[in-house]
Amino acid sequence: MQLYQRWRPLLLVLRLPGLQAYKLRTLHEASMPTPPHWLVERLGLFEKLWAVQVTRLASTARKEARTIKVSLPGGQKVDAVAWNTTPYQLARQMSSTLADTALAAEVNGESYDLERPLETDSDLRFLTFDSPEGKSVLWHSSAHILGAAAEQFLGAVLCRGPSTDRGFYHDFFLGKERFASGWQLMHSPSGGWRFPRISCASSLRCGTLVDLCRGPHLRHAGQIGGLKLLATSSVWRSPGSLEPLQRVLGISFPTPELLRAWEAQREEAESRDHRRIGKEQELFFFHELSPGSCFFLPRGTRVYNALVAFIRAEYARRGFSEVKTPTVFSVKLWKQSGHWGHYRENIFALQPKGSDPARHPTETLALKPMNCPAHCLMFAHRPRSWRELPVRLADFGALHRAEASGGLGGLTRLWRFQQDDAHIFCAPEQLQAEIRGCLDFLCSVYAVLGFSFSLSLSTRPSSFLGEPRLWDHAEQVLQQALEESGEPWALKPGDGAFYGPKIDVHLQDALGRPHQCGTIQLDFQLPMRFNLQYKGQAGALERPVLIHRAVLGSVERLLAVLTESCGGKWPLWLSPFQVAVIPVGTEQEEYAREIQQSLQAAGLASDLDTDPGLTLSRKVRRAQLTHYNFQFVVGQKEQSKRTVNIRTRDNRRLGEWDLTAAVQRLLELQNARVSNAEEVF
Amino acid sequence: MQLYQRWRPLLLVLRLPGLQAYKLRTLHEASMPTPPHWLVERLGLFEKLWAVQVTRLASTARKEARTIKVSLPGGQKVDAVAWNTTPYQLARQMSSTLADTALAAEVNGESYDLERPLETDSDLRFLTFDSPEGKSVLWHSSAHILGAAAEQFLGAVLCRGPSTDRGFYHDFFLGKERFASGWQLMHSPSGGWRFPRISCASSLRCGTLVDLCRGPHLRHAGQIGGLKLLATSSVWRSPGSLEPLQRVLGISFPTPELLRAWEAQREEAESRDHRRIGKEQELFFFHELSPGSCFFLPRGTRVYNALVAFIRAEYARRGFSEVKTPTVFSVKLWKQSGHWGHYRENIFALQPKGSDPARHPTETLALKPMNCPAHCLMFAHRPRSWRELPVRLADFGALHRAEASGGLGGLTRLWRFQQDDAHIFCAPEQLQAEIRGCLDFLCSVYAVLGFSFSLSLSTRPSSFLGEPRLWDHAEQVLQQALEESGEPWALKPGDGAFYGPKIDVHLQDALGRPHQCGTIQLDFQLPMRFNLQYKGQAGALERPVLIHRAVLGSVERLLAVLTESCGGKWPLWLSPFQVAVIPVGTEQEEYAREIQQSLQAAGLASDLDTDPGLTLSRKVRRAQLTHYNFQFVVGQKEQSKRTVNIRTRDNRRLGEWDLTAAVQRLLELQNARVSNAEEVF
Repeated sequence: MQLYQRWRPLLLVLRLPGLQAYKLRTLHEASMPTPPHWLVERLGLFEKLWAVQVTRLASTARKEARTIKVSLPGGQKVDAVAWNTTPYQLARQMSSTLADTALAAEVNGESYDLERPLETDSDLRFLTFDSPEGKSVLWHSSAHILGAAAEQFLGAVLCRGPSTDRGFYHDFFLGKERFASGWQLMHSPSGGWRFPRISCASSLRCGTLVDLCRGPHLRHAGQIGGLKLLATSSVWRSPGSLEPLQRVLGISFPTPELLRAWEAQREEAESRDHRRIGKEQELFFFHELSPGSCFFLPRGTRVYNALVAFIRAEYARRGFSEVKTPTVFSVKLWKQSGHWGHYRENIFALQPKGSDPARHPTETLALKPMNCPAHCLMFAHRPRSWRELPVRLADFGALHRAEASGGLGGLTRLWRFQQDDAHIFCAPEQLQAEIRGCLDFLCSVYAVLGFSFSLSLSTRPSSFLGEPRLWDHAEQVLQQALEESGEPWALKPGDGAFYGPKIDVHLQDALGRPHQCGTIQLDFQLPMRFNLQYKGQAGALERPVLIHRAVLGSVERLLAVLTESCGGKWPLWLSPFQVAVIPVGTEQEEYAREIQQSLQAAGLASDLDTDPGLTLSRKVRRAQLTHYNFQFVVGQKEQSKRTVNIRTRDNRRLGEWDLTAAVQRLLELQNARVSNAEEVF
Repeated sequence: MQLYQRWRPLLLVLRLPGLQAYKLRTLHEASMPTPPHWLVERLGLFEKLWAVQVTRLASTARKEARTIKVSLPGGQKVDAVAWNTTPYQLARQMSSTLADTALAAEVNGESYDLERPLETDSDLRFLTFDSPEGKSVLWHSSAHILGAAAEQFLGAVLCRGPSTDRGFYHDFFLGKERFASGWQLMHSPSGGWRFPRISCASSLRCGTLVDLCRGPHLRHAGQIGGLKLLATSSVWRSPGSLEPLQRVLGISFPTPELLRAWEAQREEAESRDHRRIGKEQELFFFHELSPGSCFFLPRGTRVYNALVAFIRAEYARRGFSEVKTPTVFSVKLWKQSGHWGHYRENIFALQPKGSDPARHPTETLALKPMNCPAHCLMFAHRPRSWRELPVRLADFGALHRAEASGGLGGLTRLWRFQQDDAHIFCAPEQLQAEIRGCLDFLCSVYAVLGFSFSLSLSTRPSSFLGEPRLWDHAEQVLQQALEESGEPWALKPGDGAFYGPKIDVHLQDALGRPHQCGTIQLDFQLPMRFNLQYKGQAGALERPVLIHRAVLGSVERLLAVLTESCGGKWPLWLSPFQVAVIPVGTEQEEYAREIQQSLQAAGLASDLDTDPGLTLSRKVRRAQLTHYNFQFVVGQKEQSKRTVNIRTRDNRRLGEWDLTAAVQRLLELQNARVSNAEEVF
């Protein structure tokens, strides 16, 4: 044990045995460069140290070879030999499948390589790809393989290469000259990736890579059954860097089948990509003259406004008061709120350029990145009494945050967006009821939107501000509210913000992909920074608690999630394609136009199809493919009776309806925000 | 005539005979300073030149004394003597009232002092205070009186002193030393104005003032029966000035009675001042950390949103499509649109300060002052066909315009505001129908808001851009639409913008005060600057016409006008005080709370009054004074029957109503946007 501790730094040097003779199958054209002298020297040093280490470990194994107790998963207990028995050996004893699928072990809560000997009585758990920890092990080792290849074949200088929650990436420096050749290697002339498909067999060895790393690592590269590189981008190591690093992103799986399944799902996701659907359905577009901001076209604005109207209706039911606050504030405000200190890089701070001092302020201004300080000013603008509490201020104001422009993409990351942002100012004793109310708000909105979700509670970090007693109380309140909610939730100890604990909401879209949208966040700091007070029941001035909360979060991002989740087949109440009005012949065009106008005036999104070049059935088919929830077909009979013949986008025939009754029914279903209006019409 | 022409520059020197011995009655404490030598010299020079002029005029009068024909108002023709007969003499012949009330004359379309002799056959018209021209004459002379007093008593150096459409002002320079003493003179120790009430009798003379001025002027200062100074402010003569000028604003009337009537009306207006009502009703407030921007409190946001919802409903009926465009754009956009050239001083141009080039753009950005260029980008973002036209894009996006901060005041002039802004892109042959539609839109909205209004057509200015043929056609179209509308309208020749003719809307509030809000403006330039095109019916690319139009104009300013117009007694559909729920005793509090919550959930603004310190009748009275449209009183009987007892703010008793039916009725009246819900409930 002493020995192991002493040698730990060296043992942490990566040694992935199966990779010693690493070859890139698909990189056969790339000539193998002669290894530079430093690499030869490094390998020599490593092998020398490794040999010493192996000898010492063998000696320890002899000296410390006593019997220890190991608790296996499922409760079974077995005997093992200290410094000799490895988790891998125990896995083989349990089942050959487990031995094949285990990627690492957890021993007394610590991560272990499968081949690292146990040292003492142990609780043992195996990590497979099914668990987040197992995925992380596979992707971590995959990043090393990528690094090894980049170093050996591209002459890259390696930097960070972590696993993420969706794969892994590696940053490295290529320099200008090497960059060009490296780029060529990584892109085939036919435009596809050449580097990506490394199928790692156990006979391959990762010859030259030596990296200081904590691990744990795979037993051998053959445990990676399929690996795919996904994208490259430039990243700056720090704001002042002159040259960028290259970042290569990838993902890997234990078997080729899993990779193929992932690819199929990804293809499905791409066909639902909100940028693609946004363009096809004319929901929105982007323009270089306003980077990071979205232009919402009429149809996108319709969906956007329907979401806002939904939240507004909930605000009315739940006692929230909508307010409107300015867009631009003096930086003094952001200094007072503390954002200038903690968040400055993300604030669009602006020095007005005008020459006229009477017209332009001389101080620096900033576009608001969040609404909370403005709401604090609003709470503080006149004395408050306990009778008024809780004060719940909601704001759809446009926010601007300077995200790295490389990170901008579609609606999910923007410089400009709006939130269904609200701040609750309450007395400490009201906290529990308010949190319960917030959770209920979240649950009922997500139910209407058709999302499943999970909750997590992030508690006090090591560097927190404020009184521990207050934190303890608040964490208890949050925990209790979570338990009462009946929803699944996870604890994230130490993951709270420095100013208060929080509940995060991770919703899952129709493809099972996670998105972090809503949040409920306590704040003990802002009420102090803005000296917020109310006259308590006993007459003394007291400090309110502040809750930040959002259900949709960024309306733009939620719109992206919804677009992909429904794949462009909008539920009636959100749909920009509610009704297509289709006259059978030109004689009915006038009547059809009248119908379309009355639908429009009633606030229903409708279009008229008078294309003379298409047959009736083709027009109906086209409307269904465009995902119009309903088609109103009108022929001579319908015109004379002032009726419409209704079909749904799934081609169900609902028959003849009186026009007024049909409009009324649509409005009912729209107002009820049902997800299946076509079925329940 | 020759002589008169030659002497004209000197005749234009002001000589207001009645003012030679001017005294300020209420300024009796102010000691008369000894006139400085330059002033004595100036007066001497003037008297000398004046004497020469009088002599020459007398000589001309002798030489040119022939008979001329004068057409009087009403068609009467009389004989007069050239260079001898004055308009004043003719006025006296007509009636002594006219002689007393006439302030100046118009002779063959030219403004004349009443005592200036006629020179040739003349069409003569007298200007009285009833006409805008008469007001202008009185206020112009009043500005001279103010200037004379400021020069003589404060040692001011005079600058501009024009009449305006609501009185007059005079700018002058006092210097730092004189400023302090001048200030003392102008403010009495008791806080009221001391300077203002100059009651000018004809025995007073304005001794020292000599000013080069075109006139026309009053016969004597006694024609000013009442004069009041209203406010002072600092103004900068030019952007680079180091020291400000003092601006003193005033108003005057031919009789003291008219001044008193104006003061009474002003008091009424002040009691309706939207800033006062905004504070009392907690509609909005301002904060130094965001100058020129308004914070709308929950009640103000309610009114705001009700206005926007009204316009949205009209958009649906009228085929307008709402869109959402960014807030910040590259200045390249404003250069392309031409605003950078013509409007730069009003644009908040901003140089981002961030240090990270990946995060912050390096080019200058600007907050949008208007939506039109963004809508042009939207029209142009894909090819367009004639089938799509007209495209009507509406946008409520926040606009920022750098107004001089001295001009900021309440909601009427802001740095940040929103408009019910829309742009119509149409084919030239659709222009007439679109203009007609715009006028109909205006008329129907103003009818609901209860405003009367007048229209004006501003035509091609001398420095116009574009083809004269296009202008002619457009002006004809606008004129025809105005005539068809049946509304009164006035022609303002040459008052159009350089890019197109326009129709302006001047609405009158409940106090008869004019406000310029809506506009319909043609634009031939932007479609060219953005190279907007559509595929015409014949297949060739054609240029659309652009119509800028707004009905409310700035929503903020209209909200101010509405607030003052209704004096805080909001019509139900706009009201932030729709229902006060009042329990008779504490036993009904629970039921009352339930009612209040169901009203709120239905989207009705309601409050609960459970103040235990007030009797029922006092609570009802308080709710009526707060202008709650309705009071729902609930006692034991109402609770047991689930009804409410309804009163209106004018204390009409509507009796007992079923709760659900009452809510339903309120929603009906709200949706119908009636102005008198209390009467027709």
